[in-house]
Amino acid sequence: MLDPAARQVLRGAGCVVDDLMVRYDPELIDATVALAPSEFTLRARNPEKSLVVGGRQVAFTSVGGPAFVSDLVGGRRAGTHREQEDFLRVVQQLHVVHQEGGGPFEAMDLPPETRHLDLCLSLIRLLDKNWQGIALGRTRAADCIDMAAIALGTDRDGLAAQPALLTIINTNTPLTLDIPMAEGLTEFIGAGQAVVITPFTLAGAMAPATLGGALVLQNAEVLATATLAQLIRPGAPIVYGSFTSNVDMRSGSPAFGTPEYTKAAQAGGQLARRYRLPFRSSNTTASNVVDAQAVYESAMSLWGAVMGGANLVNHAAGWLEGGLTASLEKLVIDAEMLQMVAEWMQPIDTSDEAIGLEAIAEVGPGGHFFGSPHTLTRYEHAFYRPLVSDGRNFESWTEDGAPDTTQRAHEVWQRLLEQYEQPPLDPAIDEELVEFVAHRKEVSSRPTP
Amino acid sequence: MLDPAARQVLRGAGCVVDDLMVRYDPELIDATVALAPSEFTLRARNPEKSLVVGGRQVAFTSVGGPAFVSDLVGGRRAGTHREQEDFLRVVQQLHVVHQEGGGPFEAMDLPPETRHLDLCLSLIRLLDKNWQGIALGRTRAADCIDMAAIALGTDRDGLAAQPALLTIINTNTPLTLDIPMAEGLTEFIGAGQAVVITPFTLAGAMAPATLGGALVLQNAEVLATATLAQLIRPGAPIVYGSFTSNVDMRSGSPAFGTPEYTKAAQAGGQLARRYRLPFRSSNTTASNVVDAQAVYESAMSLWGAVMGGANLVNHAAGWLEGGLTASLEKLVIDAEMLQMVAEWMQPIDTSDEAIGLEAIAEVGPGGHFFGSPHTLTRYEHAFYRPLVSDGRNFESWTEDGAPDTTQRAHEVWQRLLEQYEQPPLDPAIDEELVEFVAHRKEVSSRPTP
Repeated sequence: MLDPAARQVLRGAGCVVDDLMVRYDPELIDATVALAPSEFTLRARNPEKSLVVGGRQVAFTSVGGPAFVSDLVGGRRAGTHREQEDFLRVVQQLHVVHQEGGGPFEAMDLPPETRHLDLCLSLIRLLDKNWQGIALGRTRAADCIDMAAIALGTDRDGLAAQPALLTIINTNTPLTLDIPMAEGLTEFIGAGQAVVITPFTLAGAMAPATLGGALVLQNAEVLATATLAQLIRPGAPIVYGSFTSNVDMRSGSPAFGTPEYTKAAQAGGQLARRYRLPFRSSNTTASNVVDAQAVYESAMSLWGAVMGGANLVNHAAGWLEGGLTASLEKLVIDAEMLQMVAEWMQPIDTSDEAIGLEAIAEVGPGGHFFGSPHTLTRYEHAFYRPLVSDGRNFESWTEDGAPDTTQRAHEVWQRLLEQYEQPPLDPAIDEELVEFVAHRKEVSSRPTP
Repeated sequence: MLDPAARQVLRGAGCVVDDLMVRYDPELIDATVALAPSEFTLRARNPEKSLVVGGRQVAFTSVGGPAFVSDLVGGRRAGTHREQEDFLRVVQQLHVVHQEGGGPFEAMDLPPETRHLDLCLSLIRLLDKNWQGIALGRTRAADCIDMAAIALGTDRDGLAAQPALLTIINTNTPLTLDIPMAEGLTEFIGAGQAVVITPFTLAGAMAPATLGGALVLQNAEVLATATLAQLIRPGAPIVYGSFTSNVDMRSGSPAFGTPEYTKAAQAGGQLARRYRLPFRSSNTTASNVVDAQAVYESAMSLWGAVMGGANLVNHAAGWLEGGLTASLEKLVIDAEMLQMVAEWMQPIDTSDEAIGLEAIAEVGPGGHFFGSPHTLTRYEHAFYRPLVSDGRNFESWTEDGAPDTTQRAHEVWQRLLEQYEQPPLDPAIDEELVEFVAHRKEVSSRPTP
C-alpha cells in the first residue's frame, strides 16, 4: 500500500502495517465490505439516461483510455481533440451505449497536464448520457468532480447526495495499490462518487499461470481496496471489477477474449455476488484490426460478461488491440453485438395471441404466413432490426460493390456523425464550465514554487 | 403427410387420416416418442472417434449441403469432386469437428443421380471420423447405408445393432412431410440408423411472425415426425432438431444468428429435454463473406446452441451465406471458435496446487510470475493454444504484412491440406466399395423400363 494516507486509514482500523505492507483481519474485510450498496444510481445530464449500477441491470460503456484512434480510411494514429469529439458524437447516438468510458483515447495535440479539462468539457457538452471520471491522481480526479457538479447545476454536497461519476481504480498487480490510484480513489470516494476496483491479473505474468491462482489474487486485491474505500466512507458506491486474462504463450503478450478470459469473467461474477457487490467485466480483444479475431474474442468476452452477471461492461464498444486503440468501425460493430445481446435478454412472448394457433390452422399445410393478418399486424416490429448486418442475397450485395461489415460500419459512423445534434446545455452552465477550465489551466501553467 | 406408406403406418396406430391430413391423439404422441433413447452411439471407422449423441455430450459437425464452395483466392464457385475431397482432407484434421456433415457442397462436375456414391466413397476413404448419411429419397439413403456397412466390415444387421449413420430429415414447413424425406426417414429408421428431425420454421415466412408461434409449429412438426419414426421402429435413435429463425425485414430473406435465433435455440433445447430427446442446433450466418457479421452471427448461434444444451451442433464449421456456400476460411475460423467453446467447458482447477498461495507469497507485491517455479512447471500447457488467432503486437504484425484472420485462415487450411495423411483402409474393403459404386452406377445408367 504505497500511499501513506491510505496506510494511515488502514492502521486506524486495526490492520497490521509493516513498512509498505498492510495485513488485514478477514473479519474486518467481511464486515467493512458488507457496508457497500449492492445497487446505486448515477445521474446523467439527461435524467432519462441516469444509470442504475447493480441488481439485475446491465450497463454498457464505450471504450476508455487507449493511446491511439483508428478508422478504415485514416488507419491507426495518435488522436487529436477534434477526433476525440467526433468519436463522442458517435457514442452519443448509439443508444445501447449507456455510459461513456472517460475519453475514448488521448488527445495528443493537447498538453498532458490539462487535457483532462478539455475532455471533461467535451463530455459535458457533447453527451447527455453518463460518463466516467478520471482518477489518475488527486488533481485530475478533483477537476472531474468539480466539473460534473457544475454540469448538473449542483455543488459537491449535492453531487455526494446523488452521485454522477464512476471511475476505474486499477490495482498494480501483484498486491500493490500505487499512489496515483490511491489518491484518485480517496478523492472519488471522499466526494461520494463511485469507484470500480479492477486488478489486471494477467495469468502467467503478474499473476500465477492458473485461473485459480489469478482469481485468488484478484479477489484479495479487490477486497483490500474495497475495505479501504468503505473505511474512507462507509456505504460508498463501489463495484467488484474483474480483468483476469492470460498471456499468449507464443508471443508473451496479453491475450483477450480467450476461453480462460470467459471463465474468469463468470467466476468473477460469482465472487462479486458472494460479497453482494455490483460486478464489472469488459469486452476485449487482442486483435490488431477489425477482423474475425476481433469479433470472436469480443463475443467470448461478452459471453463471459453477460453469463457472469456483469452489471457494468466496460470497454463494451470500440476497444481494439488489447486496449491500445479505439476503433470507430469496432465501435459500430460492437454496438450491433450489444444490441443483439440486449434483444436476446427480452423474454419470448408466449401469449395465445403471439402463438397464433388460429393463424397456423388458417394457413394450413404447404401455405405461408406472408399475407396472414397475424403477420401483417406484427411485421413492422416483429424482429430485431440490425444496425450494420446485411441481409441481401449474394447477387444484390455483389452489385452494390460487395461491402464487408467493416466497410458498412465505416459508412454507419460517418452517417451518425453527419446526423449528430448537440443536446442543449444551459448557457450559464456552459459559461461557468468555460471559466472553470480557463482558471484551472491558468493555475496549472504557474511555475511550481 | 404426402407419403402413402407413412400415412398407412399412422393410420395403423389409430391416427385419423383425412386425404393427406393426419391427426394425432396427443397420448399416442407422448407414449410413442417416449420410446426413443435419450442417448445413443454412432460408430466411426476409427473406434476412438465413435460419437455419443445425447446426455451431456456436445458433438460438432462440419457444414453439409451447400451449393457452392468458396475460398479467399478462388472466390465463390460451383465446386468439383476434387475440391470436395480437399475440403474433407481439412475436416479430417480439425479434431474439434467430431462428425462430417454428409458432403460439404455439391460436386457439380459429377452427374446428380450418382454423385452421392462418389461422395460416400470419398467420405469413407479420406476420413476415419463419423460422417452423416444422405436421406434425399430411398435410393440415395439405401446406398449410404450399404456403403457404411461395407466400410465397417459388417452387414445391415450388424449396422442396425451398432448404428453408424445419422441423417437430417427436414419437414416441409408448415405442417408437411414430403415424399423424399419420408422415404429417407423410413429407409434410415428401418435400417436402425439415426435421424435428426428438423423443421425449418422461418418466422414471418413459412411460420408465424412470432417466436412463440414458430416454436409451437416446430414442436408439432418434430413430434408428428418423431411419432412416425418410433412407430416404424420402436426405440430408433432420433434427435429433436431446431432451426427456427426469422426473415430479415429489409430484404425478406432468411436471417441467421439473430437474437431471435439464439432464443429459439435455447427454447428448442428446453422442448427437446421435455421429451427426453437429444437436441440438435446449428452454427449459422447470413453473411455473404467471412467478415465481422459472419463471426458475430456464428457466435450468437453457438451461444444459443451451447446454452440450449445442444448435443449435436450441425453446420458447426464452414457454413456461410445462409447455407448456400461452404467456405474454407470459415471452416478454420469456426474450428477456432469451437475449440474455444470446448476449452471454456473445462472446469477451473481450484486445487491448492493450482491456486499456489505459496507462489503468490514468494513473488510478493510488485513482483512477477514469469520465472516462478509454479509458472515454469505449468507454462507449456497452461492456456488454450489458438489455431488462427494472432497475439503479436501491432509492430511485429505490421512487419509481417498485417495479415487479417481470414488471410491467416487461408494459410492454415492450405498447410493442413499439405500435411494430410490418409487414414489406412483395409484394401479388401476398399475394393468392395469400388465394386459397389461401379455396380450401382451401372444399374443407374440402364434405361428405365
